[in-house]
Amino acid sequence: MGGLYFSFLIALLLSATVEASYCSNEGVQTVRNISELAQDNYGRPGLSHTTIAGSLLHGFKEVEVWLQTFAPGAHTPIHRHSCEEVFVVLKGTGTLYLATNSHTKYPGSPQEFPIFSNSTFHIPVNDAHQVRPLFFILVLLLT
Amino acid sequence: MGGLYFSFLIALLLSATVEASYCSNEGVQTVRNISELAQDNYGRPGLSHTTIAGSLLHGFKEVEVWLQTFAPGAHTPIHRHSCEEVFVVLKGTGTLYLATNSHTKYPGSPQEFPIFSNSTFHIPVNDAHQVRPLFFILVLLLT
Repeated sequence: MGGLYFSFLIALLLSATVEASYCSNEGVQTVRNISELAQDNYGRPGLSHTTIAGSLLHGFKEVEVWLQTFAPGAHTPIHRHSCEEVFVVLKGTGTLYLATNSHTKYPGSPQEFPIFSNSTFHIPVNDAHQVRPLFFILVLLLT
Repeated sequence: MGGLYFSFLIALLLSATVEASYCSNEGVQTVRNISELAQDNYGRPGLSHTTIAGSLLHGFKEVEVWLQTFAPGAHTPIHRHSCEEVFVVLKGTGTLYLATNSHTKYPGSPQEFPIFSNSTFHIPVNDAHQVRPLFFILVLLLT
């Protein structure tokens, strides 16, 4: 598991040798190297979060695109929100817990779905969910 | 270049051995294997297009997520549209041509930007653009 994790990081470092481009009109970088973008873990050990495209950064009104990496054992909290999410699993395996009847105050028992490399799923508005990766790198998208 | 292309396809085929899950409430597949989703080239040789999440398929109002693969020599047409796009380059290199002054009827001369593995860029509304990959696999997102 550790080897898989490391191999992806190496790929990121290799791509960092390519110089990024800038749009001279706006002073904003047009083509951005994802591995050079700011990362944060928001106090969650094992999480690495990068905002690839964001409302504050790029003026989007409806959408953000994130890259998140979870170390083995790390996971999201159980949560729900008033926007949809689309997940694209770039690498790794794990379990999605989804309570589809969660429009009431307290969600019912969640269903479990295996998730895996090259899989995708979306979370409906207000459905309670948790993602527990065994090893996991994903692009997450909010609408 | 051809070897790189093939190695990615192999990764897709390996993940196809994992069984996808279904949401019993709606009869809709909750976790989908991207390599099992329908592909099309829309008459453009060298293009492989997969809609990962779409308005018609999943009821989204504002966003679609696509996976597109271009063979060497293939490219998008020069075009513009009334929505924003975010590109995430999963693998490959190429050139983005972007005419940022294209809100007039005829766009001016485009600027050229190198694009590369693990890079991202977005196209503002109505800016004329063309993507000419040397080898290119990407997730494309419309808002």
